[in-house]
Amino acid sequence: SNMVKVAVVGGEGIGPEVTAQSRRVLDWFAAKRNVPMTLREAQYGLIPYLATGKVLPEDTAEAMDEADAILWGATGGPETTKVPAAARKAGSLLGLRSKYDLYANLRPIVASPALSASAPLKAEVLDGVDFVIIRELTSGIYFGEPRGIETLPDGQRRGFNTEQYTTNQIRRVARSAFELARTRRNKVCSVDKANVLETSVVWREEVIKLHKEEFSDVELAHLYVDNAAMQIVREPRQFDVMVTGNIFGDILSDCAAMASGSLGMLPSASLGPVDRFGRRKALYEPVHGSAPDIAGKGIANPLGSILSVAMLLRLTLNRPEDADLLEKAVQTALASGARTADIAEAGAKKLSTVQMGDAVLGAL
Amino acid sequence: SNMVKVAVVGGEGIGPEVTAQSRRVLDWFAAKRNVPMTLREAQYGLIPYLATGKVLPEDTAEAMDEADAILWGATGGPETTKVPAAARKAGSLLGLRSKYDLYANLRPIVASPALSASAPLKAEVLDGVDFVIIRELTSGIYFGEPRGIETLPDGQRRGFNTEQYTTNQIRRVARSAFELARTRRNKVCSVDKANVLETSVVWREEVIKLHKEEFSDVELAHLYVDNAAMQIVREPRQFDVMVTGNIFGDILSDCAAMASGSLGMLPSASLGPVDRFGRRKALYEPVHGSAPDIAGKGIANPLGSILSVAMLLRLTLNRPEDADLLEKAVQTALASGARTADIAEAGAKKLSTVQMGDAVLGAL
Ligand SMILES: CC(C)[C@H](C(=O)O)[C@@H](O)C(=O)O
Ligand SMILES: CC(C)[C@H](C(=O)O)[C@@H](O)C(=O)O
Repeated sequence: SNMVKVAVVGGEGIGPEVTAQSRRVLDWFAAKRNVPMTLREAQYGLIPYLATGKVLPEDTAEAMDEADAILWGATGGPETTKVPAAARKAGSLLGLRSKYDLYANLRPIVASPALSASAPLKAEVLDGVDFVIIRELTSGIYFGEPRGIETLPDGQRRGFNTEQYTTNQIRRVARSAFELARTRRNKVCSVDKANVLETSVVWREEVIKLHKEEFSDVELAHLYVDNAAMQIVREPRQFDVMVTGNIFGDILSDCAAMASGSLGMLPSASLGPVDRFGRRKALYEPVHGSAPDIAGKGIANPLGSILSVAMLLRLTLNRPEDADLLEKAVQTALASGARTADIAEAGAKKLSTVQMGDAVLGAL
Repeated sequence: SNMVKVAVVGGEGIGPEVTAQSRRVLDWFAAKRNVPMTLREAQYGLIPYLATGKVLPEDTAEAMDEADAILWGATGGPETTKVPAAARKAGSLLGLRSKYDLYANLRPIVASPALSASAPLKAEVLDGVDFVIIRELTSGIYFGEPRGIETLPDGQRRGFNTEQYTTNQIRRVARSAFELARTRRNKVCSVDKANVLETSVVWREEVIKLHKEEFSDVELAHLYVDNAAMQIVREPRQFDVMVTGNIFGDILSDCAAMASGSLGMLPSASLGPVDRFGRRKALYEPVHGSAPDIAGKGIANPLGSILSVAMLLRLTLNRPEDADLLEKAVQTALASGARTADIAEAGAKKLSTVQMGDAVLGAL
């Protein structure tokens, strides 16, 4: 069938609350715009663990295995310490990234002028910011072996991890960056620490090689990771597509979240390899985490999750007009003053999670 | 003798220019405040390489070996590619950090209200920012073994590095942080990635252990490195002393540079272990690099280097009143409108490097 299969997994903390709103948005696109998709909801985390002994029960694993796209909420927080480490690990988000080989993590950083009052950066610095960080997500120090904790002969303990990249791992994520840049302002900035790390030396050499071989029409620059962190704050407008390894991407994308005005607004897509049918497994999730301090209060910002649906419409469903429609509806809602607590100015009216969902649906 | 020995090594790029101004400041303190020190100037980098075949010639190595404190300028830049990698490596800054075991790198982040017009962060975010990042400087992924580049059986190349910390390495740098916090607002924030890396698990456990054993009067918090990068931009005022490993400290301190208003203003101190005479080898340097694009033009900001002299007065010479005097002179110069190009508002008069030195000396 040509129906696209979407698994909806709210997860833990504020995940289920925000995902309930993006689920409403998905339903709207299915009903009103005839977007050909089937939705399957599934549970993840502490609740299924208490019922089944697994954070990722069979039914959820099956829903995700079958899906073309997974709409993911969040995981983690203090509650999760009720799950033993081994059970937690068996179904972890890192394990899922690895299982589905979701190597290209796209995090668009777009400043919302409507939000500049609550942002730490000056309006003139935020103005016009529009770039994408592509973070390699299935290798690097997150997965490198050997790793562990050992006791030394003198009784000390020593923790160790391995940072590593192979040329193929570098090429495929760099290719995603060059291809994306061609659809945008045609600029790639590759970030590494080649003045210190051999891993980064190979990274930089391979990016340069691929650029020369296939993408010499794209403008390519290189920054050391320390300088990149500074430049993201100093002048974020300079970037179009930034590509980097797993741990550097983790740090830089949170730093960049502030360059967009608010973490609660940011969507992400994690893409796997293209298979022989031209399909590409994808997981969409807001960049924010499970925010245990506000979980269950109905005040979380659902826009990161809703904008992740826009990425799903664009990348998995190949419906750019529908993605634009949704992104415009979010901007319309913001322009009309809709604010959850995290993006509200002092004294402004604060919408609940559901009311923000209403505001976006109202603008559609 | 009770004379403190200071080696003054300007190095490369803008290093010699800015160090010439901090040298004038040192001379002033020796002459006018009877600070008991002897100065020895020495060369480092491309120039001695061309004359002797070594970036770190014997005379310079000897001056640094003998010194209690080294006032360092900068190294690096495109010019340095004229030095073969092996010769460069033989005398590298990383090698010096390791040789003198300068494990505790202190980077104070203090916002200058006078500079808020040219800063990317809003004045109300910058206002009152005053914290210190302590970066572990002689271990972690910078020095971990094994490291290298290998060719795999399938012809691919693979780069790899080892992140690692032992309990003693963690304890000594954490101790510096707790001790410093006691002289300030009594708060330490330890930064790691313990949700992913075993190295960070040991880091966090050992910081908690030391805190319990000896520093339970100090308030201790923990942040994951991605969140820390965001918090530094979102609300830098929340921090007092932040302690972290080598690579995380490298990235976070550049990110924090923007939270202070300008990279050109930031000093640093790198401290070794206390020896049996109570002495502690130290290297003082501005946080900025060699800035090859403006080297030789006489427009670099010498305040990062001059404020490094204030750290030298405080930490090596134990002259807190003189350190305060110098820091106040810098604030007076700024308040009277003295600006080098990097911190000048559009249209404002720009001082040269020497004129900024004059302005500080004039305010002393
Ligand atoms: C929760 C954590 C393991 C994760 C990561 O480090 O990748 C998160 O920070 C992220 O960025 O998705
Ligand atoms: C030049 C480089 C090796 C150095 C580092 O990474 O330590 C620099 O960035 C610093 O922070 O002193």
